[in-house]
Amino acid sequence: MRKIQGVASSRGIAIGPVFQFRRAELKIETCQNQDPAREWKRFEQALETARGQLTQVYEKAQKETDQAQAEIFQFHLMMTEDADLLDRVKKMLEERRTNVEPIYMEVSEGYAKELAAMDNEYFAARSADVLDVANRVERILMGVAESPTAGLKVPSLIVADDLTPSDTILLDKTLVLGFLTAQGSTTSHAAILARGLGLAAVGGAGNEVLWLPDGSTILLDGGTGTVIVDPDEATITAYKRRAEQVEQLRGEAQKHAHEPAVTLDGFKPEVSSNIGDVAGAKKAVSYGAEGVGLLRTEFLYMDRPSMPTEEEQYQAYKAILEEFGHMPVVLRTLDIGGDKELSYLKMDPEMNPFLGVRALRLCFKHPEIFKAQLRAALRASVGHNLKIMFPMVATLSEVREAKKWVNICRDELKAEGKPFAEDIEVGIMVEIPAAAVCADMLAREVDFFSIGTNDLSQYTMAADRGNPGVAHLSDAFQPSVLRLIRDVINASHKYGKWTGMCGELAGEPLAAPLLIGLGLDEFSMSPPMVPVIKALIRTLDSNEMKKLAEEALDKETVEEVRELVRKRVPAAAALEG
Amino acid sequence: MRKIQGVASSRGIAIGPVFQFRRAELKIETCQNQDPAREWKRFEQALETARGQLTQVYEKAQKETDQAQAEIFQFHLMMTEDADLLDRVKKMLEERRTNVEPIYMEVSEGYAKELAAMDNEYFAARSADVLDVANRVERILMGVAESPTAGLKVPSLIVADDLTPSDTILLDKTLVLGFLTAQGSTTSHAAILARGLGLAAVGGAGNEVLWLPDGSTILLDGGTGTVIVDPDEATITAYKRRAEQVEQLRGEAQKHAHEPAVTLDGFKPEVSSNIGDVAGAKKAVSYGAEGVGLLRTEFLYMDRPSMPTEEEQYQAYKAILEEFGHMPVVLRTLDIGGDKELSYLKMDPEMNPFLGVRALRLCFKHPEIFKAQLRAALRASVGHNLKIMFPMVATLSEVREAKKWVNICRDELKAEGKPFAEDIEVGIMVEIPAAAVCADMLAREVDFFSIGTNDLSQYTMAADRGNPGVAHLSDAFQPSVLRLIRDVINASHKYGKWTGMCGELAGEPLAAPLLIGLGLDEFSMSPPMVPVIKALIRTLDSNEMKKLAEEALDKETVEEVRELVRKRVPAAAALEG
Repeated sequence: MRKIQGVASSRGIAIGPVFQFRRAELKIETCQNQDPAREWKRFEQALETARGQLTQVYEKAQKETDQAQAEIFQFHLMMTEDADLLDRVKKMLEERRTNVEPIYMEVSEGYAKELAAMDNEYFAARSADVLDVANRVERILMGVAESPTAGLKVPSLIVADDLTPSDTILLDKTLVLGFLTAQGSTTSHAAILARGLGLAAVGGAGNEVLWLPDGSTILLDGGTGTVIVDPDEATITAYKRRAEQVEQLRGEAQKHAHEPAVTLDGFKPEVSSNIGDVAGAKKAVSYGAEGVGLLRTEFLYMDRPSMPTEEEQYQAYKAILEEFGHMPVVLRTLDIGGDKELSYLKMDPEMNPFLGVRALRLCFKHPEIFKAQLRAALRASVGHNLKIMFPMVATLSEVREAKKWVNICRDELKAEGKPFAEDIEVGIMVEIPAAAVCADMLAREVDFFSIGTNDLSQYTMAADRGNPGVAHLSDAFQPSVLRLIRDVINASHKYGKWTGMCGELAGEPLAAPLLIGLGLDEFSMSPPMVPVIKALIRTLDSNEMKKLAEEALDKETVEEVRELVRKRVPAAAALEG
Repeated sequence: MRKIQGVASSRGIAIGPVFQFRRAELKIETCQNQDPAREWKRFEQALETARGQLTQVYEKAQKETDQAQAEIFQFHLMMTEDADLLDRVKKMLEERRTNVEPIYMEVSEGYAKELAAMDNEYFAARSADVLDVANRVERILMGVAESPTAGLKVPSLIVADDLTPSDTILLDKTLVLGFLTAQGSTTSHAAILARGLGLAAVGGAGNEVLWLPDGSTILLDGGTGTVIVDPDEATITAYKRRAEQVEQLRGEAQKHAHEPAVTLDGFKPEVSSNIGDVAGAKKAVSYGAEGVGLLRTEFLYMDRPSMPTEEEQYQAYKAILEEFGHMPVVLRTLDIGGDKELSYLKMDPEMNPFLGVRALRLCFKHPEIFKAQLRAALRASVGHNLKIMFPMVATLSEVREAKKWVNICRDELKAEGKPFAEDIEVGIMVEIPAAAVCADMLAREVDFFSIGTNDLSQYTMAADRGNPGVAHLSDAFQPSVLRLIRDVINASHKYGKWTGMCGELAGEPLAAPLLIGLGLDEFSMSPPMVPVIKALIRTLDSNEMKKLAEEALDKETVEEVRELVRKRVPAAAALEG
């Protein structure tokens, strides 16, 4: 029994045999003196076949995962029609008069390298997509049908260097127990897709996992990023029992998904969802979400060649708001920069993008983008309960500037005779330590706070949670992070405002007792966790939890905090995992 | 009059005409059918001449700047003797039979590219050094003597894309008022050298500064990073008067450098220096430093091919300690990683190095490095007042682990019969928000704190101070940062411990009244600021400052805090700049 620590990428426990996913090496031969016209025709036919396959994959992904994830395959489809790339191939066929295989590969690799050289996680991922498409088309050209998963016969844990969207989507899900990759972080394709599919995944575990023998047993804890190699019987039994138990309890919880979450003594926080599009909205409603604590708006801006217009945004927000009727929906303004970039917006390379020009900071530099979004949001608010929230606030001056832009947009719309809801609440994310430390000052200027525990932990601990070397430090159960959370909630209540939470901590069963104790007003999480947290809240007494939270805040380590909650609230411990 | 905002790189005000520093383009011609032996001889002679020049430059740098800065030219000297590089040139001379100029340039550029491609600020700087040497040798080969500063006739502000060490060191200092560069950050060569020379510098100001006409007037505020283009008379007069006034007051202060700093009501904090080597130690003593609040040990590890041995470190620490006799010297253990790397230690590339495996985190992964340093420090402590300090602490567990290693080293030395001081104080840097928030817990485990305001501001505000887009946010006068400083000092006093400060804030005249008010026990700063801060402290009443600090902590913006201090403590305002 041996442990390997990776990055927690998709929650869940998986135990089973290793299946090493090794892509068949394509041996591309070069034949001279070929007829360019004939080669071009072969190429066009292969592209056509690829498009047929990709359309099927796209439809499969739409059914099985979120819209945003399926759209990756639309990008693949686009790549099979990229005029620039195809032109380059055509020209080279004339010049070199070889078969098309080496030429197309050379062009694709060149293109992928250009993308990868941009030293940016988003484009690096696109670079993998380009090669993914190239491999597909080359396999068709060469009649190599064999997939790297041909040998996958029993339910297994897929181990790979990294996985492409096609890799993950085409796998027979009945034979996949989870993913373990040497590369990758919480933002890699494999991680995103695994979460969409509800499979456990651990990324960034290092090259040693590539040498695990096929068929050897491993245990994957996607919630902690821990991998246990050759676990003993007792460990397996314990984990298995827990997994079954959690499964059963979560099934129970779903039966009461649409009932409110009231503590034993009558405290009723709101339990909402984090979503990013209409598909997510529908999912949230079906899981019993009482609103949206975080509407991510990045989906509208990414994977496209130009800025979305105000009208496009208005339509998109309206469509989502309609799913929720009069339920509260908190729209977060653009949170781009850092690891997320836009192809049509030039951003300077930064040595530490997480400490750079992100989110609100970027919007202040591009008022035209900020205004278009604020106007669209205001217009979409009519007849709904929309709230506007600003990310990455560090100072009071920033809050004042952001509110100034909202007022400018209000005045413009008024002058243009365009309607908007007059009483929209305006709040901020508390995800920078400075905002938490000065929460009392900020509370006077805003209607609400929403704590982003992922970033707050990252900055408070000075530890990038996508970095396997320090990810363990970036833990919201750290006493320092919990203290800041307490201070933020107290500051908001002192000024009659409310505090929500949209970071991952809000959906962690073990955190719910503490958050109830600290008086959190709104919990927002991924849709499937809504019924689970609701069920747990119904078992708690808020006064008792208050005492528990006070005790927890005096603990010295994350382990002590977790142990305390496990001991005192077995119902929360039972839902972990 | 127009403002450009860059990154504050070296404190000081400079006003004067622009001198655009444009390197003469070397036109390298290729001549075929040359005799390889003759070309090799020409090359060897040019290298010999270059070595002679570099030895002179090195000696000049040693006199004018710190040892660490002079060592850059030792690296240059090494490059003129690099066997691998010279071999490549020799081989290519045989193969190509051209003159040596294009060959040597090609080889140097290839080598520089390899270094630059490592995507790491340290090697990128080395890459510039390689080209710097190549340019010197090529100029010698081609008889191009003209320097880019040939036109520099009147005292001017040197404007450049970026400056190499040779550029800055060979300038006639009587004609240089300051530096303004389009590229660069607080860690660039130009910034480091400017600080060593006591000249004002602003970096990262963007390409627009390269279009400022030669001779046009600009005003440079190296303390804030502000550049004023075509300042009007009133602005110039105001700045000039201030600069003269500050100069005069600082001259006065130096006369009392060796007297203690006691407030009007008898509170006597320690005023110490931040140093990195013996030269710095001598300088600190001459400026009246009462000890060392921060002994940086990185100089021992950098710019060398292998780890320094325990014995080497012992000798180096001993030499520095001897300069201070029984005065306290706080040795900070290795703070490498982030933007500082070691050639002989493989570090994984990180997306956000400031949030990565730095300092103590790195030492825990390499106990052999950590132990060698701790053993050397313990051994050097005999007969001196050495204290050990750990950087980048975020949790109580880390403090315990670090102390565990100190005890292991103590036990080993005891067993080996090697002496060390028994009563060494062990403390930590408080530079991560988590440490400040949990200072009460940490105070029980350590003997002292030292607040690193540069990093603490950076993490608290989530703003990289080397990034021109957000550097203005990373300001230690932010109410959030000041509140954390207050909490840290109070926590230490509650448990009978003391708190020092070794970040830049400790040497800012405008901050001293607040820090006295908050009860800071030790101020540590660059040597020249010691007499200035001492003089200021002698004019203050600590009870009055306490009230001022309380007021300041209720202010909402950095501007309000600074204005309050300026208004209430004119003596501090007079020393700004």
